[in-house]
Amino acid sequence: MSTQEATPIRKLAIIGCGLMGGSLALALKRAEHVHEVVGFSRSPATREQALALGVIDTAAPGLAQAVHGADMVVLATPVGALAPTMAAMTPYLSRDAVITDVGSTKSDVVAHAQTHLRDHIKRFVPSHPIAGKEHAGVAHADADLYENRKVIVTPLPNNALGAIASVQSMWGICGAEVVRMTPHEHDTVFAAVSHLPHLLAFAYINGLADQSRLEQFLALAGPGFRDFTRIAGAHPEMWRDVYLSNREAIRDQLDHFKSALARFEQALDTHDAHALMAFVERSRDIRAPWQLNAAIPRRDDLTQQ
Amino acid sequence: MSTQEATPIRKLAIIGCGLMGGSLALALKRAEHVHEVVGFSRSPATREQALALGVIDTAAPGLAQAVHGADMVVLATPVGALAPTMAAMTPYLSRDAVITDVGSTKSDVVAHAQTHLRDHIKRFVPSHPIAGKEHAGVAHADADLYENRKVIVTPLPNNALGAIASVQSMWGICGAEVVRMTPHEHDTVFAAVSHLPHLLAFAYINGLADQSRLEQFLALAGPGFRDFTRIAGAHPEMWRDVYLSNREAIRDQLDHFKSALARFEQALDTHDAHALMAFVERSRDIRAPWQLNAAIPRRDDLTQQ
Repeated sequence: MSTQEATPIRKLAIIGCGLMGGSLALALKRAEHVHEVVGFSRSPATREQALALGVIDTAAPGLAQAVHGADMVVLATPVGALAPTMAAMTPYLSRDAVITDVGSTKSDVVAHAQTHLRDHIKRFVPSHPIAGKEHAGVAHADADLYENRKVIVTPLPNNALGAIASVQSMWGICGAEVVRMTPHEHDTVFAAVSHLPHLLAFAYINGLADQSRLEQFLALAGPGFRDFTRIAGAHPEMWRDVYLSNREAIRDQLDHFKSALARFEQALDTHDAHALMAFVERSRDIRAPWQLNAAIPRRDDLTQQ
Repeated sequence: MSTQEATPIRKLAIIGCGLMGGSLALALKRAEHVHEVVGFSRSPATREQALALGVIDTAAPGLAQAVHGADMVVLATPVGALAPTMAAMTPYLSRDAVITDVGSTKSDVVAHAQTHLRDHIKRFVPSHPIAGKEHAGVAHADADLYENRKVIVTPLPNNALGAIASVQSMWGICGAEVVRMTPHEHDTVFAAVSHLPHLLAFAYINGLADQSRLEQFLALAGPGFRDFTRIAGAHPEMWRDVYLSNREAIRDQLDHFKSALARFEQALDTHDAHALMAFVERSRDIRAPWQLNAAIPRRDDLTQQ
């Protein structure tokens, strides 16, 4: 991908000035890949904060003003707010505006786009950056957030090729590696590697909280607990939306988990030392050598495009 | 606890020269709290490695030679090896030897001690340091491993007071904070904060491994997966022993987890956005403000001594 020669963005509209949208704006500004960044958030305080931090150049008073004349529109609201946002902004989009999002689910976002974006769907190229921080909010926005991270891009069958290229270039310029797949494939994979682990961490903390000794548990928990539960502190609104919008794939992953757990319980109940050892060994053999951002498989393994 | 004035250890016997025992030896040497460290491991190669790294001063050819004349004996083998180790070393213990261990479970270790340590049980003061590293083995031994970590000490009703003081002082000198509780209370708490999370991480990886897309999952997993599954790379033999020896408490914690998970599934199946949000919020409200090694509750909440 020749990100070097990509045409800079003239006017970037960030809809939802939080960690994700703010970090994208900062990275593109640093790379001098954008002339003007206009931001809109429903909360005036957030807009003012983004402006004061230099994340955006102009705070738009409404969606119409934010997207007016923008050649790149990035939807960075929680997934649950995407449909009404799309509906409200569509009448004001420039004819050539390229649109993307940063949502953690893709099939539902595509369905919303089909309902609300009208003819602009040709230039709507969904994205999901695999990046984040423990703390959300524009105050934590960071030009390095996407550096060496993967960004999944799920082009639609009727997408204009130029729109796909613009979105891919934009992420490449932020230091990310773009991986293409279909929206359905994306949702299957992330139910497995992200939505289920979050769910297990949430359920684990809820199970502790059902017990009267919770305080004592928290006082004595160690580094293993710290890492295992880091994702249990995540954003409730975002995760509610993820679970509502990717139910079937999550159900499927939950079935795989429960089936593995049942095998463990069977071994525990029968004092089967050999089976318990094999269970932990299988986990160790897969996880111990694993590394974040190791080389990904050949492209033809990853995409059905 | 006046760790400052504690009498140094004359001869420390480390039985099992791995990460835990090796790190203890290095910390006590650095603090000049020990005159001589003798190490024994079943594997001659491990003994020689510990000697070459300066973790131990002498490699004993057998258990008898290791404990002979030692005033402090630390059992740092996997929990499953403790019973035969105790049986084999007991005839050679000095009359005044203080004994401790570093096992992740305590009720079973106490039962083994009652069977095998004979009269020496008066000076056996069980310990469990809440510390570790991603990689085991003496090559990773580190004098700072116990710095600012908690060490649970579970004295027995008939323990000599001087033995309890010696063990507590030893951990204090390594920089750890000693927390006292009963063996049963220990096993209940650690089933909740350690054994269950490890089990969930092992089962999660096993559930992924049951699927043909495992390679793709691993290629696209991000930082949340990395942290959530770090403990899934743990030592199989150690964890097999933990599960076999703390079955009842783990079963009980698993019931709490499954009950919380069932509530989530109910909310998912009924598209109950409010319940899903409340589930994640409860987790977030507990986990987000949590910090490792925050102040622990009042002592009378923690111990029944």
